[in-house]
Amino acid sequence: MPELVIIGSGLAGASVASYVREKDPNIGITLFTKDQYVAYSPRDISFVLSGDITSFEDLMMHDFAYYKDKSIDLRTNTEVTAIDIENNSIIVEGEKRAYGHLVIATGVAHDIPQIPGIDKNGVFFIKSIEDGKKIKEAMKNATNAVVAGADPTTLEITSALITSGINTTMVAPSPYLLPGYLDPDMTTIVQNKLESLGAKVITGSPLGSINGPEHVEFVTVGKEIIPADLVIISHGTKPNVGLAKQAGIKIGETGGIQVAPSMRMAKSASVYAAGGCVEVAHHITARPTLSMLGGTAVQQARVVAENVCGGDAIFAPAVNPVVSVIAGLQVGSVGLTSYAAKQAGLVPTEGKAHGLTRAHCYPGGKKICAKLLFAEERLIGAQLISEEGVKERIDALSFMIKSGATCGQLRHIETCYAPPVSSVVDILTLALDALER
Amino acid sequence: MPELVIIGSGLAGASVASYVREKDPNIGITLFTKDQYVAYSPRDISFVLSGDITSFEDLMMHDFAYYKDKSIDLRTNTEVTAIDIENNSIIVEGEKRAYGHLVIATGVAHDIPQIPGIDKNGVFFIKSIEDGKKIKEAMKNATNAVVAGADPTTLEITSALITSGINTTMVAPSPYLLPGYLDPDMTTIVQNKLESLGAKVITGSPLGSINGPEHVEFVTVGKEIIPADLVIISHGTKPNVGLAKQAGIKIGETGGIQVAPSMRMAKSASVYAAGGCVEVAHHITARPTLSMLGGTAVQQARVVAENVCGGDAIFAPAVNPVVSVIAGLQVGSVGLTSYAAKQAGLVPTEGKAHGLTRAHCYPGGKKICAKLLFAEERLIGAQLISEEGVKERIDALSFMIKSGATCGQLRHIETCYAPPVSSVVDILTLALDALER
Repeated sequence: MPELVIIGSGLAGASVASYVREKDPNIGITLFTKDQYVAYSPRDISFVLSGDITSFEDLMMHDFAYYKDKSIDLRTNTEVTAIDIENNSIIVEGEKRAYGHLVIATGVAHDIPQIPGIDKNGVFFIKSIEDGKKIKEAMKNATNAVVAGADPTTLEITSALITSGINTTMVAPSPYLLPGYLDPDMTTIVQNKLESLGAKVITGSPLGSINGPEHVEFVTVGKEIIPADLVIISHGTKPNVGLAKQAGIKIGETGGIQVAPSMRMAKSASVYAAGGCVEVAHHITARPTLSMLGGTAVQQARVVAENVCGGDAIFAPAVNPVVSVIAGLQVGSVGLTSYAAKQAGLVPTEGKAHGLTRAHCYPGGKKICAKLLFAEERLIGAQLISEEGVKERIDALSFMIKSGATCGQLRHIETCYAPPVSSVVDILTLALDALER
Repeated sequence: MPELVIIGSGLAGASVASYVREKDPNIGITLFTKDQYVAYSPRDISFVLSGDITSFEDLMMHDFAYYKDKSIDLRTNTEVTAIDIENNSIIVEGEKRAYGHLVIATGVAHDIPQIPGIDKNGVFFIKSIEDGKKIKEAMKNATNAVVAGADPTTLEITSALITSGINTTMVAPSPYLLPGYLDPDMTTIVQNKLESLGAKVITGSPLGSINGPEHVEFVTVGKEIIPADLVIISHGTKPNVGLAKQAGIKIGETGGIQVAPSMRMAKSASVYAAGGCVEVAHHITARPTLSMLGGTAVQQARVVAENVCGGDAIFAPAVNPVVSVIAGLQVGSVGLTSYAAKQAGLVPTEGKAHGLTRAHCYPGGKKICAKLLFAEERLIGAQLISEEGVKERIDALSFMIKSGATCGQLRHIETCYAPPVSSVVDILTLALDALER
């Protein structure tokens, strides 16, 4: 059987290797990665910075021994420099190497923003565990930090820094936090939480300049001067497609590699792509979308693995369920926001409700806020915030959106009840009630 | 507008009153109940016995002032003795009273088992808050308790007694705990948990006799003698349909009142029933089933309220999602068990998996065990046990079963991921993986 070559060892690449090995004990599998570590999501780094996870090495889904044990030839610190699709081969360390199946799982890259002083000492990106280790070290002596960005990672890092006792300012270029994930009214809950912990949040302005002799001492945002001895840039993430582009592989309008639902390239049925570097169809808009989500990467990996092993799996159009944990708040989102829905030409209606995660009489219940968005009778998006019970509900809503659930169908949902774990009427039902009013 | 009369003030009856008032500020609403308290689920009493909930009065969804404020005429300690459907009237305290709409929400009754000594002092049922108060009092001086039954309430009470420091023996007449809710292999996890806390669990034998001069001193189970100064009988629950039967209303094969999907009687379009006293169709078997669940009672109440107010709502065939919390373990079930599926002539296949509720690297992750049952490609049942994340997943599975989800559709589910709240591959996906192997 021809060898499987995988380029990139993030959650997508490493999971393809594991799933294929599970199905086929004999196929040769080689995994190339420029990175030193494998099978982790860079987003998880913030939870090591916060001290919740003990060590960076723990982030890896499997340790190195696992790959040896599974006869997966893992080549860390090794760069693939070219793909030759016509000849079913790649160039690695100057040598040509043939593949039977090729999986491009090169993940994400980072646009270095054109900010004066971006190359000062004390300025970091979060691309890899190596970056995480440097930041963890820098945190020891940091008094004032600035985090630039507005996505879940930005907020998770801000939360990690502020709870570590570092004065932290978040600088969001967007008019509100978590655009693309939450509507502004929902975002306010998260911003209030960060501010209540002492974080300063500036929205609607990009980082103007980074200043200091060699090491950063302050940044400017508009006319404001903010002291900073640690700056983390957490925006500008884009699909890492340099290698694919060189190989003549079609890049879509989002900047991601175009794949069929089988995760194969149009150019060659033996070349696949998965994870942060690909674009797929969105379930609601039918337009191309990027996922860049750990859960989705692993699911795409499963599809690739099935097809490499002769299966006929597809990755269905995406709804992109996301959960982040920001200063103890679980913030979840799936499908379209109101803004995204309008951009797609839909007219969304919403049902929003506040409730509790436990019976009113049971101590320790947490506030929970849910917003459901509908268009043309169908569920198109959902947003949830609470200290508990968000992830599982977002997964449920992910399935509901994907199954084309109407408001009428959702009305028939039966929910279970016990005082320590639920209100007798679930928050999703309360949101439907609000929609009807 | 003709008056709405509701008989019974459990979660079903009280919720009909609240929902109707929300829709119609003017209609007269009178709620009759034999009970002293309203709008609570007797199942919740065990959480007051355990001390988790402070007072029995807290169990009520609303306090008495709420009903006054909403102009709902609440008549506690008042028995309706007859229904005259031909004349749209009831007899209450010897007087005839007309209704425009009638809702029968008489809940559940308890078969008093024919056990010698059942009338001894120290023997209790859990029918109402009054019973709960007596048990709470009796617990103060109890050293040895016996709880007879095998359903979620039985296990929740056992958990409450054992964690209160009372030696407790559970006597289950069934061959394993939670029959109808869990398969035997899943039940083992729960039994082990109770036993690890010091509870003694006897399965497959009913309570033989209750003995003592006036107050119970011991019970017998087969040849075994078990010391007991407190005995709680937690089985024999059945629909409370005495009043309906007298009125000539059709009782179904399960012993529950037969209703149309609109929750109306065949005999009269202005008479409804909801909650523990009715039987509805089961989504998988299409056979009549009893729910006796708080969440379902409230959902049926919403259907009744809509229709009372001129709407056209239906209660879709039931899947009966249940969650109980037993010694900190959340135990969930929805749809059919393997046994029930076979009884219904289906040939179930199963996918069962063990996982964690958080990323392997994130501290505090709890073990989670899931079993999914399929027949003819469709999801027909699910069972879940963990210290967290069960209720929300059971609700999701409830929707999935009700929407007729196939294994193939479930395969397309995208799940979200963040280390503090999830494993990168969700337990439901792991169970699907197990099914395919």
